[in-house]
Amino acid sequence: MKQLTELQNWLKEQRIEGAFITSTANVYYLTGFRCFPHERLLGVFVFAEQDPILVCPGMEVHQARTAGWEGEILPFSDTDHPWDLIAQRLPESFRDATLSIAVEKEHLSYARGMQLLALFPNATLVSAEHQLNEMRVLKTPEELAILRKAAALADYGVEVGVQTIAKGVSELELVAAVEQAVKKRGASEMSFATTILTGANSALPHGKPGLNEIQPGDFVLFDLGVVVDGYCSDITRTVAYQHVSDKQREIYETVRAAQQASLDASKPGSRIGDIDLAARRVIENAGYGDYFPHRIGHGLGLDVHEHPSLNATNQEALKAGMVYTIEPGIYVPEVGGVRIEDDVYITENGHECLTKFTKELTIIK
Amino acid sequence: MKQLTELQNWLKEQRIEGAFITSTANVYYLTGFRCFPHERLLGVFVFAEQDPILVCPGMEVHQARTAGWEGEILPFSDTDHPWDLIAQRLPESFRDATLSIAVEKEHLSYARGMQLLALFPNATLVSAEHQLNEMRVLKTPEELAILRKAAALADYGVEVGVQTIAKGVSELELVAAVEQAVKKRGASEMSFATTILTGANSALPHGKPGLNEIQPGDFVLFDLGVVVDGYCSDITRTVAYQHVSDKQREIYETVRAAQQASLDASKPGSRIGDIDLAARRVIENAGYGDYFPHRIGHGLGLDVHEHPSLNATNQEALKAGMVYTIEPGIYVPEVGGVRIEDDVYITENGHECLTKFTKELTIIK
Repeated sequence: MKQLTELQNWLKEQRIEGAFITSTANVYYLTGFRCFPHERLLGVFVFAEQDPILVCPGMEVHQARTAGWEGEILPFSDTDHPWDLIAQRLPESFRDATLSIAVEKEHLSYARGMQLLALFPNATLVSAEHQLNEMRVLKTPEELAILRKAAALADYGVEVGVQTIAKGVSELELVAAVEQAVKKRGASEMSFATTILTGANSALPHGKPGLNEIQPGDFVLFDLGVVVDGYCSDITRTVAYQHVSDKQREIYETVRAAQQASLDASKPGSRIGDIDLAARRVIENAGYGDYFPHRIGHGLGLDVHEHPSLNATNQEALKAGMVYTIEPGIYVPEVGGVRIEDDVYITENGHECLTKFTKELTIIK
Repeated sequence: MKQLTELQNWLKEQRIEGAFITSTANVYYLTGFRCFPHERLLGVFVFAEQDPILVCPGMEVHQARTAGWEGEILPFSDTDHPWDLIAQRLPESFRDATLSIAVEKEHLSYARGMQLLALFPNATLVSAEHQLNEMRVLKTPEELAILRKAAALADYGVEVGVQTIAKGVSELELVAAVEQAVKKRGASEMSFATTILTGANSALPHGKPGLNEIQPGDFVLFDLGVVVDGYCSDITRTVAYQHVSDKQREIYETVRAAQQASLDASKPGSRIGDIDLAARRVIENAGYGDYFPHRIGHGLGLDVHEHPSLNATNQEALKAGMVYTIEPGIYVPEVGGVRIEDDVYITENGHECLTKFTKELTIIK
C-alpha cells in the first residue's frame, strides 16, 4: 500500500523505530482491511526497517486476506494473550532497545499504552496522529470518487425522507424509511445514528429521534450519512411541514445565508477559522448568535468527524484536496431548529459541494 | 443515583480520592445521561468526599438535564479547552495532593490519561473497570425488564427477516427490512451493524452483508440486536432457503445440540469456562472442532459486549442476575455457517432465555 510506504518513510525521517496503529480507520487506511474488533485487539506494527505485522483475531484472518493484505499476520484466539504472542514474535534486541514508538494517543487506550510500554520498557510513545491526519486530510482521486458516491446516497436518503413526511408519521418511522432506502442501494452502514427531529425536538443540536409524530408547522430536520467502502458522508437538511411562521422563515433564511457565506470563503489558502467566522457573523448580525452553539464543521473521510476541526480559533489554511462539512444551525428552544450541512471538497481554485440536495426552503404540503 | 452512591462508597472503602469516568455506557449508568460526544470530552468526576461534576459539551447540557442529571455540570464550547476549565474548577489543594484517581483504563485514551496526570501531577491512575463491571454484571429488576423488551424486539427482527426471504432478495435488503421494522416499534438504534449473510458468506464469523442474493440451498444467518433505553439485545438464528443437504442438517443440529449443552450448564455456581466447554465438547465430538473459532459468548447490558467474557479459561462462577449470550457456531468454508445465539438470564436456580425465536431447523420454501 502507498500509504504504508509513506508512513514508513516518515518513521525513517523522524528516526522513529516503529508504530503500532490500532484504530479501525487507520488500520484500513494502511492495510485495506476494515475490521471492528469490539474489545479484541487489532493493530498493525509498522517498522522503519522491517516488514509490517498485522495483529488481529484469528477469525478475521480470512477477511484480512480477502481485503488484500499480503503481509504477515499474527492471529490470536479468544483464549490467547495477544501481548504474549507479540512479545514472542518481536526480536528481543528490538524490545530492549531505546526507541520511539508512534501510536494514536487519542485512540489507543491507557491500558494498551501501558501494555506497549511493558513490552518495550525503554520506549517512548510519540504521537502518530499528526502524521496520519496530514496524510488523510488530502484526498486522492480514488478517495474523492468514493466520497462522491457516499454523498449522492446521502442526498437520496434525504429525498426519501422528505417524500415520506405525512400526517402522523413518527421520527423513527422516517429514520427507518431512509435507512432502508439507502441500504437497498448498497450503503453498508450509516456513518452515525440517523437523526431526524421534528418540532421542538429539532431545537436540540444532538437530539434523538423518538416516536413523536410530525405536526403541521413543524420543522423536520434530517441529519444523516452513509458509509461506502469505508468512507463517510454527512448531510443535514431542514424542511417545514404544511406551513411556516415568519419567524421560522427568518431563521431558515439566516442559516442558509450563513452557510453560503462559509461556502464563499471555502478555497485554498483561506484560514480555517474564517470559515467558521463567516457563518457566525451572519448569524450574529441577525441576532441569533446565542443559538449557534457549535463549530461550523469538521473534516470528513474514513471517520465522520476527522481532522481538521473547523472552529473559529483554527489558524491553519485550507488546501486543495480537503473534504469537510459546513453546517451552521440556529436552535431556538420551543420554536425549533434549522441546520443546513454540505460536504465540501476544496478544488484548485475554489470548492465543490459533494451533497447537492436543494437548500430552498421546502414546505411539504 | 443509586449507582453513583455505590461507586462513591467503593472509593471511600478503597481510599481512592476520585474517579473520572468517561465511557458513554458508564456515564449513563452513573448519571442517567446517555451521550455520544464523538471526539469531544465527556466524563463525570466522582469524588469520595465531594459532589460529582459532569463535564460535557455545552450543547448537550439541555439533554443532560432532561435525562435527570441534577448535579453540577461543567460545560465547554468547541473553542474552549475543557482541561483548562477542569483545572480552574478543581481546588488547587486537591490537584497537588498525592492521590489515586480511578479511570476506565481500557476506555480512557492514552492522551487523556496523560492530560489527567498533567492536571494531578502527584496522582496515580487506578482501574475503575473491575468495580464498574462487578456492579453492572448483576442486573436489577428494572434493567431486566428493559433487557426483556430489547430481546423481544430482536425476536421480532428475526421474524421479519425470515418472512422477507424470497428469491432474488439481497442481504442488504433483508438488513433494511429488519431495521425498518424494529425502528417502527421503537428501537432507538441497532446494538451493532446488523449482520445477515447468505450462502458461502455465512461461513465468515464476522462477514459483512452485501448485494448478493439468496440462492436455493443457502443458509441465511441473522445476527442482530437493538438498543432500548440504552440496553442491548443480541440474537442469532440461521435458517435454510428451499432445501438443505444432509451435511447442512448435520451442522445445524450439531450447533443446536451444542447450544443446548451450554444452556443446560447455565445456573448459579457453574464455572464460566465450563459454559464454553459444554458446547465445544459437542462440536468437537461431531468432528467440527476446527470450525468453531470463537468463545461461546459475552456479557450483555449497556454494552453489547461486556463483562464477563465466556471463554474456556474463565474461572469465575455464574451468579443469579447475570445476563450473557450463548452463541456457538460452525463455519465450513464454501459450505456455509450456522450460529444460534440467545440472551440468557441467570435466575436463582437456573436460567431463562430472553430471546425466544424458534431454534427448530426452519426451511423457507
